[in-house]
Amino acid sequence: MRTQVAIIGAGPAGLLLSHLLAQGGVESVVLETRSEEYVAARIRAGILEHSSVELLESVGLGDRIRAEGDHHRGIYLQWPGERHHLDFVDLVGRSVWVYGQTEVQKDLIKARAADGQEIHYEVTEVELHDDHVTFTDKSGQSQRLDATAIAGCDGSFGPSRQAVPAAETYEKVYPYSWFGILADVAPSTDELIYAWHPNGFALHSMRSATVSRLYLQVPNGTDPQSWSDDRIWDELATRLGHGQNGWKLTPGPITDKSVLPMRSYVQTPMRHHNLFLAGDAAHIVPPTGAKGLNLAIADVALLSKALIAKVKEGDERLADRYSDDAQRRVWRCTHFSWWMTTMLHTSGDPFDAQLQLSQLKWVANSEAGATGLAENYAGLPIGY
Amino acid sequence: MRTQVAIIGAGPAGLLLSHLLAQGGVESVVLETRSEEYVAARIRAGILEHSSVELLESVGLGDRIRAEGDHHRGIYLQWPGERHHLDFVDLVGRSVWVYGQTEVQKDLIKARAADGQEIHYEVTEVELHDDHVTFTDKSGQSQRLDATAIAGCDGSFGPSRQAVPAAETYEKVYPYSWFGILADVAPSTDELIYAWHPNGFALHSMRSATVSRLYLQVPNGTDPQSWSDDRIWDELATRLGHGQNGWKLTPGPITDKSVLPMRSYVQTPMRHHNLFLAGDAAHIVPPTGAKGLNLAIADVALLSKALIAKVKEGDERLADRYSDDAQRRVWRCTHFSWWMTTMLHTSGDPFDAQLQLSQLKWVANSEAGATGLAENYAGLPIGY
Repeated sequence: MRTQVAIIGAGPAGLLLSHLLAQGGVESVVLETRSEEYVAARIRAGILEHSSVELLESVGLGDRIRAEGDHHRGIYLQWPGERHHLDFVDLVGRSVWVYGQTEVQKDLIKARAADGQEIHYEVTEVELHDDHVTFTDKSGQSQRLDATAIAGCDGSFGPSRQAVPAAETYEKVYPYSWFGILADVAPSTDELIYAWHPNGFALHSMRSATVSRLYLQVPNGTDPQSWSDDRIWDELATRLGHGQNGWKLTPGPITDKSVLPMRSYVQTPMRHHNLFLAGDAAHIVPPTGAKGLNLAIADVALLSKALIAKVKEGDERLADRYSDDAQRRVWRCTHFSWWMTTMLHTSGDPFDAQLQLSQLKWVANSEAGATGLAENYAGLPIGY
Repeated sequence: MRTQVAIIGAGPAGLLLSHLLAQGGVESVVLETRSEEYVAARIRAGILEHSSVELLESVGLGDRIRAEGDHHRGIYLQWPGERHHLDFVDLVGRSVWVYGQTEVQKDLIKARAADGQEIHYEVTEVELHDDHVTFTDKSGQSQRLDATAIAGCDGSFGPSRQAVPAAETYEKVYPYSWFGILADVAPSTDELIYAWHPNGFALHSMRSATVSRLYLQVPNGTDPQSWSDDRIWDELATRLGHGQNGWKLTPGPITDKSVLPMRSYVQTPMRHHNLFLAGDAAHIVPPTGAKGLNLAIADVALLSKALIAKVKEGDERLADRYSDDAQRRVWRCTHFSWWMTTMLHTSGDPFDAQLQLSQLKWVANSEAGATGLAENYAGLPIGY
């Protein structure tokens, strides 16, 4: 087989890349080790920032976001006794959309199918070489895919990351995890609530008008099955301030429990010869700033332009700049994710707790503080 | 002896309090363990924020600041290869003055002398009681000073701090110190340069048109005599970017070398019965944000009003609120000082270094980021 760009990974980064390349007249083949059903169903991020939505709309992927997504003007920032709304539209003229990664994935699969995109699911033994990829297809057949460029969109556990010799790696493992639940109950809030509490951070998010997504800061290694549903709802009620100023948290049937570790990771460069990394393959952020999916989309926006120029014109200039260009935003988002995380998660140190409260009060009450959060959360322009 | 307010400590906090009380018609006696010459000569802070200057001017202490102080519109923020000017006047309409604590002290001593203020220097065996203070005066005589209120303005090593039972104490010791020098050479910059460098933080400050004040981040426990003058200037040149974009650091004779530890400390409450704490007696900040002296001035501005109402009218309301009111600003400044410190001092961890660089670039290039720094550095209104 021969294609112009071999894409490893059929998650949002890989499929969006194939979509952008196709729009630019570049053909690609996508390889994925998981099944189509698995990739479509896995629960990940839920917030699209302004420029992600703009990008998706500009390539025909915005209809369902507008119809079924939930437009949020901002977020609530809270500590015991006080809840403040930060209105991103007022502050920076941009906003966010609640639209799950599973929905983005559905839109991408539909659009790529309509285009006749070649995607191989359930492949095994993927090996990356400079001008080709070898793999075993679903039927057990050994295959060789020749390509002018290879895009590693296969996350932190895929083979692409290891195929790029890292000049530098940067990592921070946070000393806490998120206990996340999905519940079949209408959200008790119109926009996300980020709550600091002496017991630990809590987040009230949502997936739809009938599905709530909530998180609790818990110690690393917490077994999700060791918490009863009652204990989860009680702790959420405490941390989110049930009963304060008349606000109530409505519990409901929990349909999913999981514990997510919190980690920052960055690898540079994001390119080795003809292999380019995008999304989680090159960097991981903790979920607090809702940046993971958006960063992958921004990477792919840059990478698609670089690959189109490289493959169609033989112009390597954008390809040569890709890693440096992408890294600026990667570090901005890595810093913001770290900042949100360390502002909201308790460490057990009383000095840290007072610093956090003073910072939260400043962010909520100072226009500069609120604007700083808003411009990072609602997202910087693509190409920043 | 009897007075209305016994003030422990004749530094800027104690003398300014005696000045503000006198203007409000309340008499005080000041006790100081050091000699007048020692207190007048000790080298401390050098930056007055906007509202400190406003307060000093409003009580007749501004003439020499205007005549001899150096008005700065902002600061330079720098990392290897780039230097950015943050213009506080443009950003927040406020600014700072370079005017050494030694000069503030001279102005206060002169003003208090003109008023006939009673100040006892070189006292010993100071003991605080609820309605009086006992001490031994310079001539060896035991004395008893009765007072309606006592103000502890005697820093972190004085007896006042220990006489207030702390409900809570908060402390952070930073893993680095500042190596400070005074040099008889014109500053190589018109405004302060805060420089991040892989070798560690450096700061180019100044005291006058002919005296420079410079600092280097060094490991705790560094012996200032272990560094030759050449080594100090070489390291300052490296960290401050001598030779970059045509900028030059001009060395000169070093007249003072010292190493300052970096610590954050806050004690609450700042009151116990008739004893009130102000300035370093209640809190210490690392010097990076230039907040120590300014915070002492803000404390005293609040405390003078509270004591005037208490002593003259028997109105305890402001006195009852003093600790809580002061603590809001204390924590804002403690957070800001921690933020500036941790943004600029290298920890040795490569992930931290990249976070710092991303944050510095954001602060320098985002209006919200720059405004956030400016509003905290130029200082919040008294009473914040």
